[in-house]
Amino acid sequence: MKKGILKLAHSQIFKFMFNHQTTYRVRYADTDQMGFVYYGNYARLYEIGRVEALRTLGFQYRELEASGIWMPVYDLHCRFVQAARYDDLLTIRTTIAQPPTARMLFEYEVKNEMGTLLNMGQTTLIFVRAINQRPMPAPADLVEKLKPFFV
Amino acid sequence: MKKGILKLAHSQIFKFMFNHQTTYRVRYADTDQMGFVYYGNYARLYEIGRVEALRTLGFQYRELEASGIWMPVYDLHCRFVQAARYDDLLTIRTTIAQPPTARMLFEYEVKNEMGTLLNMGQTTLIFVRAINQRPMPAPADLVEKLKPFFV
Amino acid sequence: MKKGILKLAHSQIFKFMFNHQTTYRVRYADTDQMGFVYYGNYARLYEIGRVEALRTLGFQYRELEASGIWMPVYDLHCRFVQAARYDDLLTIRTTIAQPPTARMLFEYEVKNEMGTLLNMGQTTLIFVRAINQRPMPAPADLVEKLKPFFV
Amino acid sequence: MKKGILKLAHSQIFKFMFNHQTTYRVRYADTDQMGFVYYGNYARLYEIGRVEALRTLGFQYRELEASGIWMPVYDLHCRFVQAARYDDLLTIRTTIAQPPTARMLFEYEVKNEMGTLLNMGQTTLIFVRAINQRPMPAPADLVEKLKPFFV
Repeated sequence: MKKGILKLAHSQIFKFMFNHQTTYRVRYADTDQMGFVYYGNYARLYEIGRVEALRTLGFQYRELEASGIWMPVYDLHCRFVQAARYDDLLTIRTTIAQPPTARMLFEYEVKNEMGTLLNMGQTTLIFVRAINQRPMPAPADLVEKLKPFFV
Repeated sequence: MKKGILKLAHSQIFKFMFNHQTTYRVRYADTDQMGFVYYGNYARLYEIGRVEALRTLGFQYRELEASGIWMPVYDLHCRFVQAARYDDLLTIRTTIAQPPTARMLFEYEVKNEMGTLLNMGQTTLIFVRAINQRPMPAPADLVEKLKPFFV
Repeated sequence: MKKGILKLAHSQIFKFMFNHQTTYRVRYADTDQMGFVYYGNYARLYEIGRVEALRTLGFQYRELEASGIWMPVYDLHCRFVQAARYDDLLTIRTTIAQPPTARMLFEYEVKNEMGTLLNMGQTTLIFVRAINQRPMPAPADLVEKLKPFFV
Repeated sequence: MKKGILKLAHSQIFKFMFNHQTTYRVRYADTDQMGFVYYGNYARLYEIGRVEALRTLGFQYRELEASGIWMPVYDLHCRFVQAARYDDLLTIRTTIAQPPTARMLFEYEVKNEMGTLLNMGQTTLIFVRAINQRPMPAPADLVEKLKPFFV
């Protein structure tokens, strides 16, 4: 039934994921001679997005590393929709749409001050023990902190 | 027939594409505190790969821009297989597997001195007229220069 | 007389200059394999410091460029006192100690959250007309906006 | 006597220092929206210059670190003479004009293909034991390798 589907969609948007927004001012250092943010620099924006998303959850990546766990990036996808420009105040929206397992998927949207979508992308990160650099499941406290968002 | 297929595959590998290799020495500037090349810096390696591939074809990106044509990146995919480390002498192998149309696909493989595959990726670039930043087909001379590789 | 000198020094510190502070969170992208902020990345911190200092004065560098004036960097000095580390929340303090003429000097201090001085430096920027890239005096409105600080 | 002085000057230029040259192709990643190499990116050029200079002497920085010695940068000076541009094939000339002690001074000149001086600078590096990050004198083998240039 239609009503049921709508209700489900509603919960998906408002409950079954974790969303976070942060802002980033484009610097001269980020631009290239086209006057755009260099395509390699979105990786930095994604890093800011996911680290600040985790911080909001009470989870600091610095402490994770201190505890002997690394989160290297496994893959990266970027789709360049429109150019970000010097001095733009960008909004980076980070979404965690799935509970972390051995991998953790982050999705990103980058918009300018007018709300125009400039870039979208995603990264998969894995968890490895620093000592032997072998994969491991997501740390229990991270799983715990994200549980309320995936009821 | 099997023989025919093998023959076709053989020509595909040895004739129906353009391959190029260049080297890159990892610098301290490229590393992060994990001791690896920062994941956003592969975009620079890919840029080096495709620009040097085009130069080998007698096609200079600088001149393309001077003639009023830009090649912005449309999408970027990276798969991080193993870490590149400080002072590694990387080989960037760039493949053009399809003749350029309104888009141009470049594929990349990054290996270290032992031949270990560290990273693979691809970028799609488009052609735009600088004056109005509107899409256009691949310039005729680039299409011409690549023709011998796609007979 | 001693008293007079002290009084002068006092006004110099509290009146005859313009000070501004902004913060910057160190990202993985900024670090190198020593676990420190790569020495070349302080230039980005200085850029952030001076641009935000000017913005506080009601002067946007983006608009300056739009009006056909560029401020290229003429020289850069950095003194690395102690390492900035991943996730440090740095304070960048920017000082304009002299009214701008054909050149404009910015001085910087970078401290961590404990107030430890990590880095100090300065940059001289010049003003050039974008159209012919020739030097010019500081724009009148910038001189005007800084006047109250150099009475 | 004049002749004696000239002879001395001659030896100073040709014997009492170590010179090295390497090339660097400017990438899109290096440029900013002025169309120039971003001022912070010269630190990378200097890094390339000094590391390749040391490699020519048979001294690899990677091995130095592996042996537990770091060479952090103590200070950096850059003088921007003229803009380096996209695709320029730069020559980085590195000079070691003094035998290393607790510090090691490197001087740099960056020129384009026409031999125009674009940038000059210098860095002081220090030697520290990685284990306690305390200063130490230059390693004996580095001092030894440079001896022939400072007779």
